[in-house]
Amino acid sequence: MSFSVLEFAAVKLDDEKSELIILDQTLLPNETKYLHLTTQESIWEAIYKLRVRGAPAIGIASGYGIYLAAKLSRADEFESFYDEFKKAKAYLASARPTAVNLFWALDRMERCVLTNKEKSVNEIKKALLSEANAIRDEDEEVCRKIGEHALTLLKPGMGILTHCNAGTIATAKYGTALAPIYLGHEKGYGFKVFADETRPLLQGARLTSWELKEAGVDVTLICDNMASIVMKNGWVDAVVVGCDRVAANGDAANKIGTSGVAILSKHYGIPFYVHAPLSTIDINTPTGKDIPIELRPGEEIYKAWYAKPMAPEGVNTYNPAFDVTDADLITAIITEKGILYPPYTESIAELF
Amino acid sequence: MSFSVLEFAAVKLDDEKSELIILDQTLLPNETKYLHLTTQESIWEAIYKLRVRGAPAIGIASGYGIYLAAKLSRADEFESFYDEFKKAKAYLASARPTAVNLFWALDRMERCVLTNKEKSVNEIKKALLSEANAIRDEDEEVCRKIGEHALTLLKPGMGILTHCNAGTIATAKYGTALAPIYLGHEKGYGFKVFADETRPLLQGARLTSWELKEAGVDVTLICDNMASIVMKNGWVDAVVVGCDRVAANGDAANKIGTSGVAILSKHYGIPFYVHAPLSTIDINTPTGKDIPIELRPGEEIYKAWYAKPMAPEGVNTYNPAFDVTDADLITAIITEKGILYPPYTESIAELF
Repeated sequence: MSFSVLEFAAVKLDDEKSELIILDQTLLPNETKYLHLTTQESIWEAIYKLRVRGAPAIGIASGYGIYLAAKLSRADEFESFYDEFKKAKAYLASARPTAVNLFWALDRMERCVLTNKEKSVNEIKKALLSEANAIRDEDEEVCRKIGEHALTLLKPGMGILTHCNAGTIATAKYGTALAPIYLGHEKGYGFKVFADETRPLLQGARLTSWELKEAGVDVTLICDNMASIVMKNGWVDAVVVGCDRVAANGDAANKIGTSGVAILSKHYGIPFYVHAPLSTIDINTPTGKDIPIELRPGEEIYKAWYAKPMAPEGVNTYNPAFDVTDADLITAIITEKGILYPPYTESIAELF
Repeated sequence: MSFSVLEFAAVKLDDEKSELIILDQTLLPNETKYLHLTTQESIWEAIYKLRVRGAPAIGIASGYGIYLAAKLSRADEFESFYDEFKKAKAYLASARPTAVNLFWALDRMERCVLTNKEKSVNEIKKALLSEANAIRDEDEEVCRKIGEHALTLLKPGMGILTHCNAGTIATAKYGTALAPIYLGHEKGYGFKVFADETRPLLQGARLTSWELKEAGVDVTLICDNMASIVMKNGWVDAVVVGCDRVAANGDAANKIGTSGVAILSKHYGIPFYVHAPLSTIDINTPTGKDIPIELRPGEEIYKAWYAKPMAPEGVNTYNPAFDVTDADLITAIITEKGILYPPYTESIAELF
């Protein structure tokens, strides 16, 4: 595919300068600015503040982030090197609690350290670079495959609603939810996409509508609370979303509001698809109840983005960043290995 | 009740100065500023721009508005006076298409003209003033009664979710959806209220959370897409909303997003109550399909309130101001004459 928007990498490494280069997604769509991060604090802040966001992209950023911490270590024997590594890992892991890819990538990097413990510290550093690159490269391949599987569920001319942004800038490339839209668009499928703006951080307005518009896809921006009327109007044939963590029973945590969209889909008889790289499925999390939900500051609701505060000073707020969609609301989970159908406890177990 | 917030009148008439005085609700909660409107254009603009909003308050404003048009008429014989009246009526009626109270109040004022057609123009003007005052005073009484009936459905300590603002500033006083909350609060019921922020115009954040906080009610502001998780958490025992028009079969048009909240309520087994003055019920509208839905500019979604645009320039949008909640999702409709239950076609017909 040759859409120029696919060239916007959410995360890149400049190994020579020891910089993690991040597209600052908080500035989109008004600015496409890359940040050159060299400290662990700045990488942590970029993840916490959603400058880099989307479960796969967070995984890639944390892989490169922990690699840079390791690379800059002055330790010359394994024990002190590993101690420093573990501290850096715990620090990065504290940036956000819900997306399992953060922990998955950091664990994978730690396994790389342990697998290579007999080697010199310098050789371990090289192995870590290869591993971080592999996390990135594999994600691109995974997204492409998810797109191919998901596209078999869609037909030309369909209306497709999506929530939040699980697009190219949430991943290495292509996205998860948006991957079949890009693949179908290239084939001239003529999808009509509805993008929920996705309050409070507006990933749908700022990112999804920007991505799809740049790629020439027919996209219509709506407020989250308009999904019901759009479905009732008969304009939506399928809903596609990404996810931050899938439990062993198929319950899926994703951006706040996803569970509501799933309930609306069920009410209107519209298929609801969750696009999930295997790295997002956590068989150690039995059900959605076991997924910690990140609570964020209330100011994101009534101050962020606005010219003036939009609620009275000191108002109580509740601002969960995610919610859990119950497995029985999910028509299918699309992975790079194929499409999973209910009962998910069985179809997920078979895969692992 | 003595909550000071109840003293904020959304609409007042200064007859001596021939001014319609309106609390500019677009400036809340940052400013409580009253506009003194003397021209029909400024009254039309105040309704169109939602400076005065809420079906009952729009009815009151249009009653006083058409009174002022009539009062300032220089016609001294009936025919030319009535011609001017009809022109002014058509103009004000064009400000917003969905809330039936606008047409209801204007029709009532026209009937007042026709009833008094044998009198002098000056006497007709006096009758119109009485009629407009009656619309306002009756609304206060209606809201109080709706509150009393609705309160019988609620219990102390309940969690209550509301969408948009059907509070004191949407009416003459007390509100419709919020009336039982004020009445219960006075009795120490200790409700915990969740206010949907209500995109795109944020009536829940700017108005409902402001009203309830001013009155000392425990209110928590959430984004619209958080209603599902709040219900799933078990925090909501009832949903209360106002409405802009109820059809003869019980389908109810209300602020965009209301139908989604109703579907969530059904999914989670939570009662969903529509608070509707009889003036809001239109037996000439057979079903929700016959209610015209106002479409508003897309800029309200991605530009209004924000410091910078929150979507790419020229993005497609769909911005309906209302949606229709199907009658079968409504647990009860609460009017000043009592509580209506399904089948609404029958219970509404009995009332009229």
